[in-house]
Amino acid sequence: MTGSWNNLQVPAGVRDLLPAEAAALRELEQELVAFFQSWGYQEVLTPTFEFVETFQAGSPAGDEGRLYKFIDRQGRILTLRPEMTAPIARLVATSLRREALPLRLCYSARVFRYEEPQAGRLREFHQAGVELIGAGGVAADGEIIALAVETLLQAGLQDFRLGIGQVAVTKGVLHDLGLPQEAVARIKVALAGKDLVGLERLVDEYNLTGSKRRQLELLATLHGGKEALEEARANFIQTGAAAALAGLERVWQALAAYGLEKWLFIDLGILRDFDYYTGIVFEGYVPGLGVPVCGGGRYDGLLGQFGYPCPATGFALGLERVLMARGEGQGAGQDGYLVAGRDLAAVLRRAQELRRRGVTVIIDGESQNRQEAAARAAARGLALVWVD
Amino acid sequence: MTGSWNNLQVPAGVRDLLPAEAAALRELEQELVAFFQSWGYQEVLTPTFEFVETFQAGSPAGDEGRLYKFIDRQGRILTLRPEMTAPIARLVATSLRREALPLRLCYSARVFRYEEPQAGRLREFHQAGVELIGAGGVAADGEIIALAVETLLQAGLQDFRLGIGQVAVTKGVLHDLGLPQEAVARIKVALAGKDLVGLERLVDEYNLTGSKRRQLELLATLHGGKEALEEARANFIQTGAAAALAGLERVWQALAAYGLEKWLFIDLGILRDFDYYTGIVFEGYVPGLGVPVCGGGRYDGLLGQFGYPCPATGFALGLERVLMARGEGQGAGQDGYLVAGRDLAAVLRRAQELRRRGVTVIIDGESQNRQEAAARAAARGLALVWVD
Repeated sequence: MTGSWNNLQVPAGVRDLLPAEAAALRELEQELVAFFQSWGYQEVLTPTFEFVETFQAGSPAGDEGRLYKFIDRQGRILTLRPEMTAPIARLVATSLRREALPLRLCYSARVFRYEEPQAGRLREFHQAGVELIGAGGVAADGEIIALAVETLLQAGLQDFRLGIGQVAVTKGVLHDLGLPQEAVARIKVALAGKDLVGLERLVDEYNLTGSKRRQLELLATLHGGKEALEEARANFIQTGAAAALAGLERVWQALAAYGLEKWLFIDLGILRDFDYYTGIVFEGYVPGLGVPVCGGGRYDGLLGQFGYPCPATGFALGLERVLMARGEGQGAGQDGYLVAGRDLAAVLRRAQELRRRGVTVIIDGESQNRQEAAARAAARGLALVWVD
Repeated sequence: MTGSWNNLQVPAGVRDLLPAEAAALRELEQELVAFFQSWGYQEVLTPTFEFVETFQAGSPAGDEGRLYKFIDRQGRILTLRPEMTAPIARLVATSLRREALPLRLCYSARVFRYEEPQAGRLREFHQAGVELIGAGGVAADGEIIALAVETLLQAGLQDFRLGIGQVAVTKGVLHDLGLPQEAVARIKVALAGKDLVGLERLVDEYNLTGSKRRQLELLATLHGGKEALEEARANFIQTGAAAALAGLERVWQALAAYGLEKWLFIDLGILRDFDYYTGIVFEGYVPGLGVPVCGGGRYDGLLGQFGYPCPATGFALGLERVLMARGEGQGAGQDGYLVAGRDLAAVLRRAQELRRRGVTVIIDGESQNRQEAAARAAARGLALVWVD
């Protein structure tokens, strides 16, 4: 050992929780687990790492770069879990296979994604969530969305909205465009990013006209309550998406009857992070937070990947994001961001993205490296976003 | 994706927690953190993985094989934390450097060690513990040992004992033997394993006679209260260990005055897992559990490795082990072990080791591979110990 103290840094995207934040996180976690239990959801816990095969059920191949992988002494690939749904599906398909369905399970655990660290996107973060396994249909979809709303209220958030989509509608419309896979992939990226300019460019590039053009634009722009559903029905009635749309309407009616309408809106452009979603999906948004505070949906194909085919739905909350939205702890985003990097154009682009999400961004044009930028950010009480 | 369902296994040494065990673990964790807080210890949390440099302060080089390591895209080595003391030392030396000392911090977190999975030794497990940083001397040593005893009582254990050693005494005696490093290393292994037969063999091999022989044997066999300390004093008075021994006596007296004597015994053969210990060390034992349920001690050199020299002491509990000792959850060891493997001699040896620890062991002579043995173990409600 030397005294050179090159051991004081932590890797990008992960961080320490000092007492105030650790206490806030623990309190929130306890509250949520107790709340899930009051809805009949029992807690389970899975290993922090598993064989990569567990996660291949949910991750599109191109997305595996987001996984933290390493090799054990037998040459098998181990992976830090990027989420809890696939491991719980595996657990249900093995240890809980003999239990009567539906099963209601919950968790609170740290998950890991090898992403470019940026506003609100840590590489290690804490998720709490629920899975309702072995139940299809409107009642289960309604229960999970209602639970998501009640959970955000329980967590102390007031000013939030849940966007509800249906990936079967979205995929059905995209399929009916009759475009090659690569074109669909590009359109998906534009849709997911709500990049209307980019989408218009693709509409032109692929010569989409008439009802196809209108349907694609509707996916991106439809936004609202009952009237949005009606407009979708009028436009999508002759597509492969019609049946899925009818299901979405029934869920909407159930939630409206339950008195939750004011927290909800329809957004058929929602495409979730993981490929296993098959039906209704949703994301929760809070003003000033550029990333969803929660998200989930139906994944009727995932359990089958583990040899135990049955329908399922669920959602997860990001606890650091909830704390940020409440203005608690001392996480990134409390006072804004300092964006720095070697490539000024990239820095400007990143700063613009962040500002579009409604957060305060200061550009650092002086720092020559990450250390210098970190010092500047710390001195101003800002979170650093380093663009490589 | 295929339907071949080769994604149902979890790696050796890690496991799922089903609802009963997850609930027991969460309840214990909450209880302990609240109890630590009642002693003035504030919770902190560090990243699940860090640069390997953070852990090199505490791990002897030969021990790095126990670390789970992987490489990030910049080619730096990341490591799943094997324990929390070194990360907390780093955190104190950076983010909490301006806080007044002493600092009282606590944690509850999962840690990872790449060890041969065996009775009570998981590769991922849950530790809760405390660190008292910036305090040397008898009062701090006494506080930590008293807190360890009170914590085990709080956790519902009754029938336990804490063995207290002093690595400065042990290392002083070993140093005074005047043997080469390799010989000392072999003697340490025999001492740590309480392998008296092996130790006698080494005594003969290295021609230790007279007071040297007697001192070494005393390290291995001294076991008791005040009288053991007196015997140690009589025998070690002229060695480099005398001053450290006097400190140990003062701590013993303080703990006895506090009324804790009945939980404690002196054991100068205790050598802890991590190389950073410099003074009083201790381990907690429960009948029938072949591994310590808690352990800790003084590590006055560690903070200096992070550029912030100050004395410190602390301890950690293994939560799975506490649950096992209480007979709760459904962890390994509840109903006994099935030991299997390709080499029968190795299987018999491992079975004997386990039985010496007072647990039930059934030998499986039939299974040809781990999968088969796992099925047999599961069928009988036994935990599998596979000997490679």
